[in-house]
Formats: sequence, C-alpha cells, structure tokens
Amino acid sequence: MRYGIAVFPSKKIQDVANSYRKRYDPHYALIPPHITLKEPFEAEEDEINGKIIPELKEVASVTEPFSIGIFKVSTFSPVTNTIYLKVENSDEISNLNNRLHSDKLPGEMEFSFVPHITIAQKLSDDEFSDVYGSLSMGKFDLHDHIDRFQLLYQLENGAWSVYETFRLGEKTL
Amino acid sequence: MRYGIAVFPSKKIQDVANSYRKRYDPHYALIPPHITLKEPFEAEEDEINGKIIPELKEVASVTEPFSIGIFKVSTFSPVTNTIYLKVENSDEISNLNNRLHSDKLPGEMEFSFVPHITIAQKLSDDEFSDVYGSLSMGKFDLHDHIDRFQLLYQLENGAWSVYETFRLGEKTL
Repeated sequence: MRYGIAVFPSKKIQDVANSYRKRYDPHYALIPPHITLKEPFEAEEDEINGKIIPELKEVASVTEPFSIGIFKVSTFSPVTNTIYLKVENSDEISNLNNRLHSDKLPGEMEFSFVPHITIAQKLSDDEFSDVYGSLSMGKFDLHDHIDRFQLLYQLENGAWSVYETFRLGEKTL
Repeated sequence: MRYGIAVFPSKKIQDVANSYRKRYDPHYALIPPHITLKEPFEAEEDEINGKIIPELKEVASVTEPFSIGIFKVSTFSPVTNTIYLKVENSDEISNLNNRLHSDKLPGEMEFSFVPHITIAQKLSDDEFSDVYGSLSMGKFDLHDHIDRFQLLYQLENGAWSVYETFRLGEKTL
C-alpha cells in the first residue's frame, strides 16, 4: 500500500487553506489541508505494523511540540506551478523531517525540505499568473502549535485515510 | 467545534464502499468510508483536550480489538433512504458504542445503534428503488479486524479531519 506522513494544522488554518483549495486545487476532495513530512512511499502492512510504526513512535517521542508561523504564499514555479502557504522553516520542523528520512524508514528525500501547505496546483499558465499575482500580494499572520503527525494510506480513488496519530514528546507503548 | 467519533475500516472495505459512494453518496468527498460510533457533538477545544480525550483513552484501553463481518446491504428506509453496508452487530461493537455514550462524554444516543457503512444517501425515490433493488440482491463477504477508533473534527467546508487515533486494548499516557 501507499503511505504518507503529514501534519494537519488547526481548523483555523485548514479553513483558510480550503478557501483557496476549493477553487484552485484538484486534490481538494482527496485530503484535508496538510504539511507533507514524508512523500508517499510503498510498504507492506506487516512492515508498517512491525517496523515503521515503532520507529515513528520513537521519532515522535524524541520530538517536542513546536510552533509554526505562516506569513505569505510562495510557489514552486517554474518547476511546477503549485502555490502554497509558506510555513516558516525552523530547526524543529526541519529536524522532524530529517528524523522521518533516516535509514530506518523507507523512502528517500528527493528534494530539500520546504515546509508548505498547498493551496493551488495544476493550474493553466494563465490561471497561475492571475492567481499567484493576486495571492502573492497578500499578507498572512497564522500561527499554530504542532503537537502531532499522522500516518496515512491512500485508497484506490486517490483519497487518503488516516491510519495512526503520533503525539510529539510522548512516550507510548 | 463539531466533533465525531468513527472507525475507518481496512483499505479493502473502504475501496468497496467507495465504489458505490462515488456514484450514490454526496458525502463521498467529505470523509472516507467509516462506521460512526458517536454522532457529531459540539465541544470546546479545552474540553476536548482536558476531559474528552482522557476519557476516550480510558474507553480504548478497556476495549479489546474485535472482528467485524459484512454480508449484505440494508437501508434506513422509510426513515431516510440511506443505503449501507450492514456491519453485523456484536457485543464488542455494541459495548464500545455504549462506552462512548456514558455520562462522561457529551452527546446523547438518539437512536438504537445500527453499525453500518453508508454507501448511498439523499437519492431521489426512483434512484433509491433502483439502487437498493439491485444492491440488496448482492452478497458480500467482508471481514475486518478493528483495533482503533478516531476522533475527528469538521471543517467549514463540511469535510472531516482526523484529530486523534485511539488504539483498542492499549494503555497510553
């Protein structure tokens, strides 16, 4: 099965993101607004339960909850025309991302980590120019306290279902 | 905020349910296929973190994982024309439902508990007759092992976001 690891921010931030995603993101219905911590990877259920979940518990237990700030939108253009709420990078989120890319877990880090919440993707060139032109002038002042991440798996229709929650800074059995 | 409690069955069962939901359930994009254990209720975040989550951990810890079987579809007609995969009732799932309706948690049990996975709702009368007529002849033989339930909250767009996973039979801190 195909798994991924993400943070779902507070309802307030999800609602802001969805106000844009509704119009500009074809993945709107497949998953709530999120910060991807680890790109989708393939794993067997046995491996998930026997190896990966214990390792994710370990990662969560050594990671303290942290704060994030969002102050503007940015884009991956010209690589892709994705537009996103830029999550200010910090040692905390970057360390968490690194821990989720150790040798003990499947999947490679293909790009340098840019924490973000996608709000628009797969736009035509014209749409992209319009939408990014208007959004990039906006100022945001969103703050959140991140105290958990989630392991998800993908259904046949492309939607993602949460399998497990990992709370930061908590030892679990 | 508006919270709910549900079980998400295995990918296999979710994929079967989605094959019908895609056509017949307008809530298809709002939440993956699920068994509702507690109808939506209003709660403040403080209450969720201070009172409700500790109680849900307690409920999870005293509930052992259990098996479910799905062998046919059924309907709430004539009350509503919802069609669902009927989850065979059992002491285990019924006890779990009862524990989630104790005085320690908000929300009342308004109806007797009928464990189910909705696959069609809000159909016109004609559509309902057609779809139910055809589905009710089908036989299903789906089995799953339930070892967790999830607390979700609802976003402004109506979609549900998972807040926390509770594993059955596990003591957590």
